[in-house]
Amino acid sequence: MPAPIYLGVIGVGGVGTSFLAQLARLPNAPQLILLARSTQTLLSPTPSYTPSIPAADWTTAAATPQLTKSGALSPDEIAAYLSSAPGRSILVDNTSDPALASSYPTFLRQGISIVTPNKKGFSSDLGLWKNIFAAAAEGNALVYHESTVGAGLPVISTLRDLVATGDEVTRIEGVFSGTLSFLFNTFAPAAGSAAGAKWSEVVAQAKELGYTEPDPRDDLNGMDVARKLTILARIAGLEVQGPDAFPVESLIPEELAGVPSTAEGIVEFMKRLPEFDGQMTAVKEQAEKEGKVVRYVGSVDVGKKEVRVGLQKFDKDSAIAGLKGSDNIISFYTKRYGANPLIVQGAGAGGDVTAMGVSADLIKVVQRLQ
Amino acid sequence: MPAPIYLGVIGVGGVGTSFLAQLARLPNAPQLILLARSTQTLLSPTPSYTPSIPAADWTTAAATPQLTKSGALSPDEIAAYLSSAPGRSILVDNTSDPALASSYPTFLRQGISIVTPNKKGFSSDLGLWKNIFAAAAEGNALVYHESTVGAGLPVISTLRDLVATGDEVTRIEGVFSGTLSFLFNTFAPAAGSAAGAKWSEVVAQAKELGYTEPDPRDDLNGMDVARKLTILARIAGLEVQGPDAFPVESLIPEELAGVPSTAEGIVEFMKRLPEFDGQMTAVKEQAEKEGKVVRYVGSVDVGKKEVRVGLQKFDKDSAIAGLKGSDNIISFYTKRYGANPLIVQGAGAGGDVTAMGVSADLIKVVQRLQ
Repeated sequence: MPAPIYLGVIGVGGVGTSFLAQLARLPNAPQLILLARSTQTLLSPTPSYTPSIPAADWTTAAATPQLTKSGALSPDEIAAYLSSAPGRSILVDNTSDPALASSYPTFLRQGISIVTPNKKGFSSDLGLWKNIFAAAAEGNALVYHESTVGAGLPVISTLRDLVATGDEVTRIEGVFSGTLSFLFNTFAPAAGSAAGAKWSEVVAQAKELGYTEPDPRDDLNGMDVARKLTILARIAGLEVQGPDAFPVESLIPEELAGVPSTAEGIVEFMKRLPEFDGQMTAVKEQAEKEGKVVRYVGSVDVGKKEVRVGLQKFDKDSAIAGLKGSDNIISFYTKRYGANPLIVQGAGAGGDVTAMGVSADLIKVVQRLQ
Repeated sequence: MPAPIYLGVIGVGGVGTSFLAQLARLPNAPQLILLARSTQTLLSPTPSYTPSIPAADWTTAAATPQLTKSGALSPDEIAAYLSSAPGRSILVDNTSDPALASSYPTFLRQGISIVTPNKKGFSSDLGLWKNIFAAAAEGNALVYHESTVGAGLPVISTLRDLVATGDEVTRIEGVFSGTLSFLFNTFAPAAGSAAGAKWSEVVAQAKELGYTEPDPRDDLNGMDVARKLTILARIAGLEVQGPDAFPVESLIPEELAGVPSTAEGIVEFMKRLPEFDGQMTAVKEQAEKEGKVVRYVGSVDVGKKEVRVGLQKFDKDSAIAGLKGSDNIISFYTKRYGANPLIVQGAGAGGDVTAMGVSADLIKVVQRLQ
């Protein structure tokens, strides 16, 4: 019998809820001893760390007898609790909280492994990135973050395998945002020129369908894509200072940059967006004149040490132009793969597929700790 | 310091040579103590199991002083040697030998982990498949075989992650042979109808370029694809008896099935193949009438428990039709991914990329054994 492994989970939003459902069905799942949402924490009582918490939605979990209940705990308190468990422990961070991410080194130095879809720890300043991996080595702990790029698609693991086996990654290119994929696949489809919809109408439709963040500017500013490119560039060996250290083309019209991020501001932004439809129509029509379509892509040129995020034109028969729905596509050009890249494609957003990446990482961490 | 891990490698052909070059550059590589080719074996002397063998081409390795040299050893002898090493050990099988593959359970029961691109162990009779994984569990040893399908492309690992995290894989479909991919991409390209080349000319060209097996019938009979489909279907949960337990369309004309597999037979086969060009032209033209192209694909329908390998027609704007060179493409349709599959695409053959899958597996096994 392998020694028991203990698990803390923070975040019970869309990804967190899907993750708990998947965790409940995992064979050899670690014992859930901490489950936290923003203002509340459930804990298995010390010093026995039993009973464990059922992997279920928050209400069911909270109704379990004998658990200790508390308000929000600090990262230091959580680390102290997990590191005192009678076995190795893992923290799954299903939030997008930058403060929690900046505490990863604290967890790792105490031997607590980290599994997370939270991009913040890996895409903020380079010092934190280095500190995370140094702390993991010091604490003999593991860090897995597949779902930080492309959700459950095998992107991070593939890039790490290419690098670890000595391939030379020359270029990474792709569509890294499900939201922006949907917007451009709808606005400027490769098959048949969708005569109709204006840019602002497509954005409004995506917002209604729940494909955008509550404030669509959080997608349109390109920062989410920039964070993903920062992570990939760093794994490929580039010392990128942060997501603002390279050119990122924002799709927010300059004139609307000052509209506040409040609920009223969002309404005002959506109301004024049609004024700028002409700009996007011009971009689309220019591409069409060249027999191409416009897409919002990110790229890393490893040799030139260049990272860029923004609009680019693609041949209509290219894989990027042919993307459907809100799919992501990621192409790895390497020395071994030659002219035709290694391509990974599919849904890159959504609770279930993001949680799948987290669950698959968790399985691998458990296998390595056993 | 983690305990040392010991490595035996069998096979120094194309994949084996590329693998040894990659092994030489791996940080934390296990200690190579056995290197074998068909009639010769190099061993680190017992009982110290030092010095280790340099990861290099056969001639360099064989010139290393102090090694024990021997003829071919039996699987039992190799297992006895590896299992007596003063630490955990791993066997990398870079052959395509069915006899060695049928001995995997012997190695695994003695605690020796297996890493291999050799399809034979996983695609022959179902009893061997079951025995391999039962033996791995008994011996607390690991089995990794990413390169058995799609070479270094993340195919096996992706499918295992989908299954392990509880997704429901409904269908797997793709082009699984680099050779057949090249033949059909050249014979019936999606962009522009290549007026010219006849089927037999394309086969001859592929043979000259070294894209086919020495006997092209080993590609044209579809058995290599059938073995890959057997492996994927089994991981997806189907109890497939073997690669001959489902329909496999052979591209060898019936009239030429009796031509012997000798050097003279190969010459005769290539000489008589043009007699049958009309058949393939008819297939191609029928597809073109429907605005489609013909491709040689494999598919697993998990719900219907159906596996098939053979010719199929595809829309010209489909991802399969647009494949280039000798690329593979594998689409996973699952409950979580919905209408748009998770797709992996890229070179699925070649020494370097096949060895990459082996090296990446080896890294993972070492990480789990440490």
